[in-house]
Amino acid sequence: MTADPRLPARFPYGGDWCPEQWPAEVREADLDALQAIGVNTVTLGVFVWTQLHPAPGVYDLSLLEEIIEPVRRRGMQIVLATPTGAHPAWMARTQEVTRVDDQGRRRLFGVRHNSCPTSPAFRAAAAEIAGRIAERFGDLEGLVAWHIGNEYSGLCYCGSCAAAFRVWLQRKYGTIEELNRRWYTLFWNHTMTSFEDIVPPSALSEHWNGPAYTAFQIITLDYRRFQSEALLECFRLEKEAIRRHSPDVPVTANFMGFYKDIDYRRWAEDLDIISWDNYPRIGHGPARVALAHDLMRGLAPGKPLWLMEQTPSQTAWRPDNPLQEPGLLRLRTWQAIAHGADATLFFQMRASRGASEKFHGAILNHAARTDTRVVREVAQIGAEVAAARELAGTRPRNRVAVCVDWDAWWSLEMSDGPTRRVVYVDEIARFHEDLFDRGIGVDVVSPDADLAGYALILAPVLFVAGPERAANLARAVAAGAHLVTGFLSGRVDEDDQAPILDVPGHLAALCGVRVDETDSQVEGVTREIRWADGTITSADTVFDLVTPVDAEVRAAYADGFYAGSAAVTVREAGPGRVWYVGARLDAAGLRQLWDEVLGAPALAGIAAPRRPGLEQVERCRADASAPSYRFLLAHDGEHEVVLEEPATDLLSGQALPAGMRMRLAAPEVRVLRTAGDRT
Amino acid sequence: MTADPRLPARFPYGGDWCPEQWPAEVREADLDALQAIGVNTVTLGVFVWTQLHPAPGVYDLSLLEEIIEPVRRRGMQIVLATPTGAHPAWMARTQEVTRVDDQGRRRLFGVRHNSCPTSPAFRAAAAEIAGRIAERFGDLEGLVAWHIGNEYSGLCYCGSCAAAFRVWLQRKYGTIEELNRRWYTLFWNHTMTSFEDIVPPSALSEHWNGPAYTAFQIITLDYRRFQSEALLECFRLEKEAIRRHSPDVPVTANFMGFYKDIDYRRWAEDLDIISWDNYPRIGHGPARVALAHDLMRGLAPGKPLWLMEQTPSQTAWRPDNPLQEPGLLRLRTWQAIAHGADATLFFQMRASRGASEKFHGAILNHAARTDTRVVREVAQIGAEVAAARELAGTRPRNRVAVCVDWDAWWSLEMSDGPTRRVVYVDEIARFHEDLFDRGIGVDVVSPDADLAGYALILAPVLFVAGPERAANLARAVAAGAHLVTGFLSGRVDEDDQAPILDVPGHLAALCGVRVDETDSQVEGVTREIRWADGTITSADTVFDLVTPVDAEVRAAYADGFYAGSAAVTVREAGPGRVWYVGARLDAAGLRQLWDEVLGAPALAGIAAPRRPGLEQVERCRADASAPSYRFLLAHDGEHEVVLEEPATDLLSGQALPAGMRMRLAAPEVRVLRTAGDRT
Amino acid sequence: MTADPRLPARFPYGGDWCPEQWPAEVREADLDALQAIGVNTVTLGVFVWTQLHPAPGVYDLSLLEEIIEPVRRRGMQIVLATPTGAHPAWMARTQEVTRVDDQGRRRLFGVRHNSCPTSPAFRAAAAEIAGRIAERFGDLEGLVAWHIGNEYSGLCYCGSCAAAFRVWLQRKYGTIEELNRRWYTLFWNHTMTSFEDIVPPSALSEHWNGPAYTAFQIITLDYRRFQSEALLECFRLEKEAIRRHSPDVPVTANFMGFYKDIDYRRWAEDLDIISWDNYPRIGHGPARVALAHDLMRGLAPGKPLWLMEQTPSQTAWRPDNPLQEPGLLRLRTWQAIAHGADATLFFQMRASRGASEKFHGAILNHAARTDTRVVREVAQIGAEVAAARELAGTRPRNRVAVCVDWDAWWSLEMSDGPTRRVVYVDEIARFHEDLFDRGIGVDVVSPDADLAGYALILAPVLFVAGPERAANLARAVAAGAHLVTGFLSGRVDEDDQAPILDVPGHLAALCGVRVDETDSQVEGVTREIRWADGTITSADTVFDLVTPVDAEVRAAYADGFYAGSAAVTVREAGPGRVWYVGARLDAAGLRQLWDEVLGAPALAGIAAPRRPGLEQVERCRADASAPSYRFLLAHDGEHEVVLEEPATDLLSGQALPAGMRMRLAAPEVRVLRTAGDRT
Repeated sequence: MTADPRLPARFPYGGDWCPEQWPAEVREADLDALQAIGVNTVTLGVFVWTQLHPAPGVYDLSLLEEIIEPVRRRGMQIVLATPTGAHPAWMARTQEVTRVDDQGRRRLFGVRHNSCPTSPAFRAAAAEIAGRIAERFGDLEGLVAWHIGNEYSGLCYCGSCAAAFRVWLQRKYGTIEELNRRWYTLFWNHTMTSFEDIVPPSALSEHWNGPAYTAFQIITLDYRRFQSEALLECFRLEKEAIRRHSPDVPVTANFMGFYKDIDYRRWAEDLDIISWDNYPRIGHGPARVALAHDLMRGLAPGKPLWLMEQTPSQTAWRPDNPLQEPGLLRLRTWQAIAHGADATLFFQMRASRGASEKFHGAILNHAARTDTRVVREVAQIGAEVAAARELAGTRPRNRVAVCVDWDAWWSLEMSDGPTRRVVYVDEIARFHEDLFDRGIGVDVVSPDADLAGYALILAPVLFVAGPERAANLARAVAAGAHLVTGFLSGRVDEDDQAPILDVPGHLAALCGVRVDETDSQVEGVTREIRWADGTITSADTVFDLVTPVDAEVRAAYADGFYAGSAAVTVREAGPGRVWYVGARLDAAGLRQLWDEVLGAPALAGIAAPRRPGLEQVERCRADASAPSYRFLLAHDGEHEVVLEEPATDLLSGQALPAGMRMRLAAPEVRVLRTAGDRT
Repeated sequence: MTADPRLPARFPYGGDWCPEQWPAEVREADLDALQAIGVNTVTLGVFVWTQLHPAPGVYDLSLLEEIIEPVRRRGMQIVLATPTGAHPAWMARTQEVTRVDDQGRRRLFGVRHNSCPTSPAFRAAAAEIAGRIAERFGDLEGLVAWHIGNEYSGLCYCGSCAAAFRVWLQRKYGTIEELNRRWYTLFWNHTMTSFEDIVPPSALSEHWNGPAYTAFQIITLDYRRFQSEALLECFRLEKEAIRRHSPDVPVTANFMGFYKDIDYRRWAEDLDIISWDNYPRIGHGPARVALAHDLMRGLAPGKPLWLMEQTPSQTAWRPDNPLQEPGLLRLRTWQAIAHGADATLFFQMRASRGASEKFHGAILNHAARTDTRVVREVAQIGAEVAAARELAGTRPRNRVAVCVDWDAWWSLEMSDGPTRRVVYVDEIARFHEDLFDRGIGVDVVSPDADLAGYALILAPVLFVAGPERAANLARAVAAGAHLVTGFLSGRVDEDDQAPILDVPGHLAALCGVRVDETDSQVEGVTREIRWADGTITSADTVFDLVTPVDAEVRAAYADGFYAGSAAVTVREAGPGRVWYVGARLDAAGLRQLWDEVLGAPALAGIAAPRRPGLEQVERCRADASAPSYRFLLAHDGEHEVVLEEPATDLLSGQALPAGMRMRLAAPEVRVLRTAGDRT
Repeated sequence: MTADPRLPARFPYGGDWCPEQWPAEVREADLDALQAIGVNTVTLGVFVWTQLHPAPGVYDLSLLEEIIEPVRRRGMQIVLATPTGAHPAWMARTQEVTRVDDQGRRRLFGVRHNSCPTSPAFRAAAAEIAGRIAERFGDLEGLVAWHIGNEYSGLCYCGSCAAAFRVWLQRKYGTIEELNRRWYTLFWNHTMTSFEDIVPPSALSEHWNGPAYTAFQIITLDYRRFQSEALLECFRLEKEAIRRHSPDVPVTANFMGFYKDIDYRRWAEDLDIISWDNYPRIGHGPARVALAHDLMRGLAPGKPLWLMEQTPSQTAWRPDNPLQEPGLLRLRTWQAIAHGADATLFFQMRASRGASEKFHGAILNHAARTDTRVVREVAQIGAEVAAARELAGTRPRNRVAVCVDWDAWWSLEMSDGPTRRVVYVDEIARFHEDLFDRGIGVDVVSPDADLAGYALILAPVLFVAGPERAANLARAVAAGAHLVTGFLSGRVDEDDQAPILDVPGHLAALCGVRVDETDSQVEGVTREIRWADGTITSADTVFDLVTPVDAEVRAAYADGFYAGSAAVTVREAGPGRVWYVGARLDAAGLRQLWDEVLGAPALAGIAAPRRPGLEQVERCRADASAPSYRFLLAHDGEHEVVLEEPATDLLSGQALPAGMRMRLAAPEVRVLRTAGDRT
């Protein structure tokens, strides 16, 4: 285990702290209390811009000095933020830095994340303050990461963005003729006679029912791409300013998992650490959370992965904010580590007294009590995660890939027809969930990534698939991979144009099918699906009438006027296989699908019995001689696991013999280190 | 059968085609394929304004030349559109042509139907391009119709419209005193001291919850009238420009059936052909579609009726877009013809590759396949409808009239009280549906039309009824007609003022009732209705407490505090009869109502047994010696029909003897020509 | 009974009349008809500003002269309004008087209540017209009250209000540093470097989902306080202008019961009469209406209370507008009197012919019929209420107080966390309803009021409780009162800051509990609650995990991970008691709660058996030798009441012996006068 200079000495545990909100004596007391329960890392300075830059031309970093000092004095690790997630009120008053919303309304000072991403004034001010902070604190002892801005998000529709969009388009398309061709502007008389004709797609132009309902998908799609990049440019400007003074400390920005408005994959190479904030929605179970971890990890396989935020207790911004049951926080923390996290941090160290997050969970509540359940649980986890430091450099290794693509997400969810009721990520998650129950780990990848090494590739609802993307998938299949795709895949290319091909377009030949018609039915209407083995399951919402061209029928509709028409097919494609799933299967249908897919001899090493409620993950190193780590996470029910090889219980330090029967009841966690001589 | 010079030589079959979106070779191949399956007519040029007028002062009609040529070369019929349904982007940038929405926001370029109807710049440009196209193509061989704009729709709230509204009001009312009197502005201090005081009713002025919730109904009503006329003026300007060069080719604009924002009846006399687009909503069955056909036909009884658009497959803009079952397209096409259509056209010939309608149904899909179910069905219909050419000049003849009135529609649906939950067209349709099931055809008419010749007149929810309207209905009753009206009728006059009379106002004497109170109850609350014969049915939403003054009680409430109060009455009015239906009856109640109404000896010729699922319609000529055509349309189930006189099966050419028993199962269609010697 | 110079000679009965909408002969006829059925008081001039002030500098009060004359001539009482509820259209066109909405849109002329409360032009014009009217009619014979504006309501977000808000803040906080401290602006970088930085909280700044979803609660809270006061200043300016000419006639403004946007309690001292408009919502039963009466009465215990508006029949502005069953109007009228009303007036005398209220109930309908049910009922009530004149000066006397506080209402309903689903007034009403069913009358009071004399104090969901408020409640407990509070109480102080204390903050010591965690669960999730006596009830939405510190557990959770944790506790606090109710109990739970609370010996005089459907109220004088009045109101079902002492039936004049058994079936009413020698 060689030391990575960028690797913190201790497994980062702690998180966001706002000492600027408290008097000095409270800061000291809080830090003492936090340190006593295992907190070794705090994130500072997220929302303090006005303190540092109280007027044009005036800078004063003394607040940072003051709040860093007690942390530094205790030898704790520091994540230092740039304060650019919320510009100063005076700046909003005196310069054009706020956004214009999709109704065309210039915003005033308020909330946060309110800065126009192309505003020259904002960009200059953000880079300036980031540079000044880096200049002063770039060599700060204990500084383990830079944290730029906060939860980048949202879109702007101002004149500056409109102008920048035109420049972006000119760069992308070169000529207005090429733009007209690729935008397909002969539809509805949208021919642009010059780039000047172009306005951002908004409620004032193309959006007739919010941004998901656009008269011109490609304009909206390009605007999303442009805005995601404009925000990335803001990040880059700050990072460059930091790098001039702090060349070695890793830089990150906190992502938000499956967040639609930013194409994180295009951002990932600019980050040194992938970090993100995990706030599972009510109803999203462990499979969905696991998928989000896998998405984040998959953005940059070689880079550290940090859980930058999770709540130690409950959220505040939702209509309902349930508590986490005893043990659930610990389970979620270890699930994060199992999926690759090299740090687990909380929002927040202590609850604010005022404004919109005052009831958000915190380690220390308003009364700063240390005898609460939350503090006890945080302390227990703190004592345990210290041991996770040795996992640095290990990663989960999976043979199954799930394709996720922002273009497909954006394009699918704004499509007029065939249906408005398929939600991109929900559909991905539905395909994934049964694999999760079988203990099959996945990597979430781009459909354009190098897919070599994956035995099974999921590409459901891959709405966007141009020729290169199709060729990439075909290459993987030619190399022996099994591919599962289906309805609402291959519908358009990257210009949001339907290919002059049978559905599923550039994927049609690969799938060996042709789809002339797709039925779409209102909520509540279902169709029976009869599988080759006689099993009957159900489907809803969307129904491709699949004509097998070079494929075998594995399931057919059993009712509706298209009874007998194929619904699920499989094509033997040399060493590989391609499944086409034409209908939105119910849970039983998906289980049947996976039984059939995984029944292939080529996937024998992947298939596992379903064990709902028990998640098993392994983290290991490329170097097979190194130890590997097996995580047993009991999310629900009680389970028995037999140890196949001797192991060490990482949390207790206890040695466990091979053959040992372990019983785990939810929410128990085991982390087993096994010797690395598996070559 | 005399030749109408304006009558196309062939029954128009085909529809919208956008060859401008395709290279020349694709155009030729597509036309070949379309012609092979019976397409003889295409609509061209709907959205090509920028191509024809790419910059201020620059005109270039070569694109039209280019796309017309292959059609003309094949001897096909052409519907030529003016491109004014979507102005150029450059025009939106350089001139004030876009609309302002009801939030007061000036729109940017985008979507379509985005032009302000009073914009001088738009009006001039639209007339100019229409005139230039007509000048060039006015004598085009095969040109069967001009198609102005596209689906006129929507409202504008800009300064130009505000100014034009003031002029319109001055013309209507003469003086501000007269306006104040008829607007009843003493309510809520709305006195206008000059026309300058008046602003359009919008979210910034009178509308407190969208346009249906207005503090001043008459202002909103007049604004709707004004806007509908302003759009009509746009149409007229283009038509005049066309007429200067093309005096004989009929001119149309495609309507949209029950479309609320335009009073089509005021437009009808300006059109030479009534044409419309039929996209039945999910849940709207054949009765509702029939009613829409009847509405459109009834706009101008003497004029040709065209089905300008229907989808050959599915729509795209809805949340769910179901396929049409096999045979349904044919059934819908023949239903259109049965109800008077002299042409049946599709949107669209081939699917666009990009933008919001790329997944809208088309005869040729993206791959231009000709071996699809859609192409087969279109081809079958194409072969059959050729025979429909001989129906030109025939019309359905009905003795039942259904009154529909845009003023009543607008006024009812924006009324504060008694209820917000009665939907004008739904209520008309509910009254109509049972008649449809009995095979009783209807004409949809204005309540102000000459009603002579109708034995039965339906005037439900006739919210607006001033003294002239009431007198017109009374004249029909005096001539022997039976009239059915009821709740929410006669509530206001054309100035949206309640008459100083008992409810139902100017209709009260005619109905012989007085209504002092109207109960309105939340969804889910019902009241029992007991009929004179003891039958119990139910009613909901709105309940008039009817006091018979000069009428007989036919049904009374059986519960609620007003148990015993009359709910349905009938007045013997000389040779005629007037029914007052005071409550929103359920389906059983409506059936009971029609049993009683149709039981009148005077209506003996109209009454027919209920045959749900089988529609029967007749088209004939005023000249009774000419052949007539009987349509049997099996919408649901299986039916037996006995032929009463010998006939010819128009679709097969087969001669059928009198007495023959025919069995039809949905979705079968029969068109029977019977000899015309019925004098 | 001494004569109060401000007390009308007759019990005011009648209400809003708009004779300006009718010709002179109609006015006379209507007045005759109204007088014949007991109307003795009309409200005039509410919406006639433009008539009185038709152009800048031009005033003409002749319309008022004209409409007052026939009323005066008949010797009727007059409530004279200032017309400032709706400014003239010409004024909206020529001066900056309209509001800007929370989307930042300057409104145009329209609706009513559309004037910016800080507009200098509006303020000057309103004071001017009020003064001129008072100058002319200040000594009008029969003038019983001034009625300023109409249903003050709504908020404005214009530049003038922004500037006035900054002044208001400067006055409140003194320095920007103090504002920053109390606004807690270190959160999300909201530090204000000058008052100029501050903008109103709106959709353009802090509100992310309407005004209830704000990023900065204190800013929105202060803006609400400021706007409520700005409207009050408008009222004061008019009142001052009136007072200069009419020093003795009482002045009022019609309130709206539980209306959120105005803190009526801060207005009350400026009014001479508390008057309000009662339009019970569908589903709000007699308990809820009673609570609204009690709220209004409680605003100013020493002042007359008028019911300024109720509908004699039905409303018009709601989606559904049910009729009132026979007798319900009478029942509601007497309920108003029972709860303290010294006048009962209707909106309206006669129905308008046009605009949005033409279908609103009126005594005289459009046809001006006098033979309707409504007229009969109004006449019956009119004959009876004349006798209520003798109740002037009496008031209900209660030993139970319910705390209601606008700050708590505002703050609770915009809180992020723990839940968005607790509705302030609904929750108060839920606590109250069972008391109502037990016949226990309540006073609705401020939690900051002098609570001496109350044996039982309800303070549920008292979200805002700073140290002074907590001390006030503690004082009452120390004096022997029993206090009931619980979940979502004491969460913040008046600056919307969470105290640095255990939940419930400054109330924690008083309650003897500590709450470390509050669970919040989605709709449909319930938790069982087990009471000390074994009873099981249920709770939902919000669940405090209560740790008793100095309290006894009375109920505990019986399921969830916190089974066993306390849910309801009681603390013996010297002579008093404090109940803490940690969960949102269902109806059975609340009944159990009240059984236990009222079981206390100290409350023996208050407890009464539950008699749902029969309301009993008493009005009496401070002078116990005066007669008192007992109201029996049968809202539902049939009831027997035994007379304990001899009484006079006020409505029939009949003498009733002690011991008499009276049977009342809904909607019957009895008002019994008993001798006043109860000393």
